[in-house]
Amino acid sequence: MSDTKNILVVGGDGFCGWPLALRLSSKGHNVTIVDNLSRRKIDIELGCESLTPISSIQDRIEAWKEITGKTIHFHMLNVAQEYDKLVSIMKDHKIQVIVHLGEQRAAPYSMKTRNTSRYTVDNNLSGTHNILSAIVEVDCNIHMVHLGTMGVYGYGVVEKSMIPEGYVDVKMDDGSGNFKDVKILHPSYPGSIYHLTKTQDALFFQFYAKNWGIKITDLHQGIIWGLHTAETKLDKRLINRFDYDGDYGTVLNRFIMQAATNVPLTIYGTGEQTRAFIHIENSMDCIELAIQNPGTEPNKVVIFNQMTETQTLNTLVSIIQQKFPNVTTSNIANPRKELKANDLNVSNKQFLDLGLKPIYISEDRVQEIYDYICEFQSSVNMKCILPSSKW
Amino acid sequence: MSDTKNILVVGGDGFCGWPLALRLSSKGHNVTIVDNLSRRKIDIELGCESLTPISSIQDRIEAWKEITGKTIHFHMLNVAQEYDKLVSIMKDHKIQVIVHLGEQRAAPYSMKTRNTSRYTVDNNLSGTHNILSAIVEVDCNIHMVHLGTMGVYGYGVVEKSMIPEGYVDVKMDDGSGNFKDVKILHPSYPGSIYHLTKTQDALFFQFYAKNWGIKITDLHQGIIWGLHTAETKLDKRLINRFDYDGDYGTVLNRFIMQAATNVPLTIYGTGEQTRAFIHIENSMDCIELAIQNPGTEPNKVVIFNQMTETQTLNTLVSIIQQKFPNVTTSNIANPRKELKANDLNVSNKQFLDLGLKPIYISEDRVQEIYDYICEFQSSVNMKCILPSSKW
Repeated sequence: MSDTKNILVVGGDGFCGWPLALRLSSKGHNVTIVDNLSRRKIDIELGCESLTPISSIQDRIEAWKEITGKTIHFHMLNVAQEYDKLVSIMKDHKIQVIVHLGEQRAAPYSMKTRNTSRYTVDNNLSGTHNILSAIVEVDCNIHMVHLGTMGVYGYGVVEKSMIPEGYVDVKMDDGSGNFKDVKILHPSYPGSIYHLTKTQDALFFQFYAKNWGIKITDLHQGIIWGLHTAETKLDKRLINRFDYDGDYGTVLNRFIMQAATNVPLTIYGTGEQTRAFIHIENSMDCIELAIQNPGTEPNKVVIFNQMTETQTLNTLVSIIQQKFPNVTTSNIANPRKELKANDLNVSNKQFLDLGLKPIYISEDRVQEIYDYICEFQSSVNMKCILPSSKW
Repeated sequence: MSDTKNILVVGGDGFCGWPLALRLSSKGHNVTIVDNLSRRKIDIELGCESLTPISSIQDRIEAWKEITGKTIHFHMLNVAQEYDKLVSIMKDHKIQVIVHLGEQRAAPYSMKTRNTSRYTVDNNLSGTHNILSAIVEVDCNIHMVHLGTMGVYGYGVVEKSMIPEGYVDVKMDDGSGNFKDVKILHPSYPGSIYHLTKTQDALFFQFYAKNWGIKITDLHQGIIWGLHTAETKLDKRLINRFDYDGDYGTVLNRFIMQAATNVPLTIYGTGEQTRAFIHIENSMDCIELAIQNPGTEPNKVVIFNQMTETQTLNTLVSIIQQKFPNVTTSNIANPRKELKANDLNVSNKQFLDLGLKPIYISEDRVQEIYDYICEFQSSVNMKCILPSSKW
């Protein structure tokens, strides 16, 4: 295959990383995973596991080989702490693309304790910087694709405005009351320490693109939902993790799990908050498109909004209740500092132009997830569902 | 004294930190220094020492006690790595104000090697975040004063514009071509890894002020010049360090040293670059004013431009040549990626309104520094003067 690449997936054992590794391997790329398995270790710390029984990374890779004949390489590595080993791995595997999914990715976990805040900052910032630094050391032509978040934009800069893809046109006061046209990185309004680190990553990217000409793509992803992809469905040893706890569970998946276990859907606050969403299969599509389209403008970071729709929490509840009329809800105090209600109007023109076929939230899709997780109902740890991190 | 405070000076053994500790102690504050002595250790690594012979931190503090009867406490501490000890020290000394000067502060050093880049990022970001985190843990009323840099603004956003103090008024496109008024943090255009970390600090501050109501003052300082303050002059054991090397030497001090040692002044590029400057005594004045004026607007970081004038490099040369007509110059290739020439128009209204009395660059001030360092002419290591970091 002419466009086969040597791809490093940092965090390739995680919720997005594992299905991505399989997707890329299935398309013929040479895939190497590095992961410190921190997500599994945090499960132990929180006393709450993936609802789906996931295999060890070694068994996952062995199963993939057995089923497809394809080899995925794995190195246990902490990118934030083992710089020299990262450099060696990149050289040994002649890496051409790095997909960086190696950050602590739960906002509630990042706000849980002083230690989890500090861990999130140290891990995410040093990890991202080590990868950039290693690219400068090994080969400035390596393309870095980073998974960021829609949360960098905040929700209230200009009321009812369209959130653009990374950059925004402004007229800036020159100090004498004259306003001049400039295009700037969208100002940052993070809502948690986790989101904060993503806004700081954006500044790393801007500088490394400007100074060393590194090709960087930053994906501002919405809230992910679903659990399967075409590849993870192939064998039970390839199954993806499914989080439903107050720290790592994302809202739609948690609602479906609550519906499936006959407990009320817990809505934080009024439910009038609007959020951006994307199905996990679409998330994989987007990352593939990002790898294929590294951008052509020199020294400029490519930024995509990686989402397909916006919905209020209350709308999600309605969709679930359409399918399962007996489902009840419970509004609980919002553990987060955020607007009671907000509009959210997001541009995702770039991915649509590249051919992304959106998978929207629908009763059928909800049913499919519902049916699948019903099998694991008895494994639900009820103590983990309610939010335990407040800010 | 009614406004006596318990003040922690992070990096209190450094070029700004040491004179600040003395100044604050002389005004009756209870001063505690924490420092990991990294600046002295980097001297060893670079094979280049302060031109002035500085005493050990222990001897400095002993001399201060002997001369003034005042006690300055010292703890050897790495704030980026020893979080728990930082928390203990803050509690033990009932700290009310933290002045954070504990960052790696040389742009050239931050661009020297992959290791010095990574050290700058890890030290500066984890250090700043640990201090903020410790404030949340110990007492959210502790006021943090941070020394930042004018370099966060860049030089070319809007041509010939006045650089405001931290925030800028813009009209932002709402996505439909309508522009709405908003005030945002000035967009970041760092010119080195060092400057980059300061722009990332600004995002830490914004979030900690918003989420926990921490009182934070960020001082965007110009290039510092001079070496003495009223207090460091009191005894030779209190003498401040004077850097002249390609990494840590700042431009005006380096020029004066070159004049004093009869070597050509090395001008990077055309010399048409304009920079902001402040005398070290004024820098101390500003930090005192910042401590006294923590701001009143809730959840908003106070940002001052800490500079008193802007000058081109060529103007600095002219001032020196007025005094010493035999001084020659040598234009060398600019080791930095920056504009060949730029305007720089900076607001410093806030400090002037608080009563700052500017000390401007003058022939007399240049003469004073010249005379003082002539004494140490024989200690100059000529191999250290030229820039060794290029980007």
